[in-house]
Amino acid sequence: MAEFQLIERYFSGLSRPDGPVALGVGDDCALLDPPPGQRLAMTMDTLIAGRHFLPDADPFSIGHKSLAVNLSDLAAMGASPAWALLSLSLPQVDDSWLSAFTSGFAALAEAHGVALVGGDTCQGSLSITLQLTGFLAPGQEMLRSAARPGDAIYVTGTLGDAALALQLASAGQEPGELAQRLDYPDPRVAEGRSLSRLGVKACIDISDGLVADLGHICRRSSCGARVYLDSLPLSSPVREYLAAGGDYQPVVAGGDDYELCFTVPPALAPQLRDMPVSCIGEITAGEGVELWDGSGKLLPLPRAWEHFSS
Amino acid sequence: MAEFQLIERYFSGLSRPDGPVALGVGDDCALLDPPPGQRLAMTMDTLIAGRHFLPDADPFSIGHKSLAVNLSDLAAMGASPAWALLSLSLPQVDDSWLSAFTSGFAALAEAHGVALVGGDTCQGSLSITLQLTGFLAPGQEMLRSAARPGDAIYVTGTLGDAALALQLASAGQEPGELAQRLDYPDPRVAEGRSLSRLGVKACIDISDGLVADLGHICRRSSCGARVYLDSLPLSSPVREYLAAGGDYQPVVAGGDDYELCFTVPPALAPQLRDMPVSCIGEITAGEGVELWDGSGKLLPLPRAWEHFSS
Repeated sequence: MAEFQLIERYFSGLSRPDGPVALGVGDDCALLDPPPGQRLAMTMDTLIAGRHFLPDADPFSIGHKSLAVNLSDLAAMGASPAWALLSLSLPQVDDSWLSAFTSGFAALAEAHGVALVGGDTCQGSLSITLQLTGFLAPGQEMLRSAARPGDAIYVTGTLGDAALALQLASAGQEPGELAQRLDYPDPRVAEGRSLSRLGVKACIDISDGLVADLGHICRRSSCGARVYLDSLPLSSPVREYLAAGGDYQPVVAGGDDYELCFTVPPALAPQLRDMPVSCIGEITAGEGVELWDGSGKLLPLPRAWEHFSS
Repeated sequence: MAEFQLIERYFSGLSRPDGPVALGVGDDCALLDPPPGQRLAMTMDTLIAGRHFLPDADPFSIGHKSLAVNLSDLAAMGASPAWALLSLSLPQVDDSWLSAFTSGFAALAEAHGVALVGGDTCQGSLSITLQLTGFLAPGQEMLRSAARPGDAIYVTGTLGDAALALQLASAGQEPGELAQRLDYPDPRVAEGRSLSRLGVKACIDISDGLVADLGHICRRSSCGARVYLDSLPLSSPVREYLAAGGDYQPVVAGGDDYELCFTVPPALAPQLRDMPVSCIGEITAGEGVELWDGSGKLLPLPRAWEHFSS
């Protein structure tokens, strides 16, 4: 099957030539007319088989995840998703794989109003690169560099679910309800928009684990962070795992949660009272992330997952 | 080396936070303010080691080529390049490779005013995905679908140089001056802009060979194309190769030329007289591409290179 037939067959239906999309899949470039006065937020992430997902993972979930991780980056900036370009490298054309992948992608794209407008396909080891563009009003962006000493640190949702699911699955155990969190991350796009409109200025999404990602905020904002383990929001399965003697590593250093971590000056904190977010610590004038337990003891930092950290 | 250090070390210098770039490399998203009234042209291409370049190819040329193939797509639309996102998958962090790759990329980026604003790095087999955005005035785009019967078909530059270089190198022979055409394709961005401003409406870049790419114009425009072999513009080495009995396959079906192929209604043709372009045939009311030799004989189509055409 020739490349252009492949592209047309699977991806043309996702193109939605309306709104800002003047021309979608099928020419040398896509053509877009962004709304006047809006700032573009652009991100691009690659998922590689054997590194970001198991090679035999359900292609529907890979399609979902390839968009979800990029939506999560837009969420962290406070942007509204708009359109995407997809590059797909495949060992061979596999009809059922492609059709499940496309369906997983399409379901999440539909839910977030994302049009697929172009990209590339080629033969190679399985990997997916997605470039996603969204909009925001200039000045409403949330940055890694905008945290200030005295800010309270918050997260959305619960932490450690995806990492514990992976840990259980790797040990041959059944991850149960946690599997959903690993295979179908739910990017916090609406939460990101709300926070940015409330005036939150500093935010990151938790893809590499709380310590690593909050560490990015500290480095970019030239400050430190104090996190209280007892304040971390946990799901029932994670609470049970900890009660049974499991350690905090997956909770503070496990990747793939795709929750938002953001910081808030004291004056803004009351406005968060009705949101499903948890205060987990505070920004300090120091350096790096500190973890404190309930008895006031400073804990050693677990080693974070890092690309290329050989 | 952690991912963020890698990104900062090699790519921050290419970010140029000015013009439309409100925020470059280093946060969850890049932020861009496109000029009002301009249409965005967006393309994304992946280069895979062993498929699009030799695994031991000079990393400087890989850096050049990864940007050049995308610039060529913008050229084919008539757009002016603006900014790029880069996803780099590498087996390991290799300082000298990365620094040569970055230099090759940077040299071409500088020449075309392209800012690198974001992307991703990860560990995996060597592959490069680049997403490039440019601008054009709405209505000035050149499309695959805009050719009409009676149009003359033109190309820029000369055809077959890159394919002959690859053929010679694969046979252990020295490609000489042709090597430059294979390793350092020169995207026809200025030519694309000029043609679009002249009013040319149908264009494609020749990446998969003349027959395949002109075939895309035929399919999208629901028309046919008649190409005269004797009219094809050839470099001296290619002319010598043909005179020595070489066949036309690399000239009409070889990829990697990155010249533009465009069509022009008769009324517009006189305006092309002073441009370095060659008329090679005409668009017909038929279907598909026909090749004719100097004696008026219809030739069999050589098999074009296609992804996944197993």
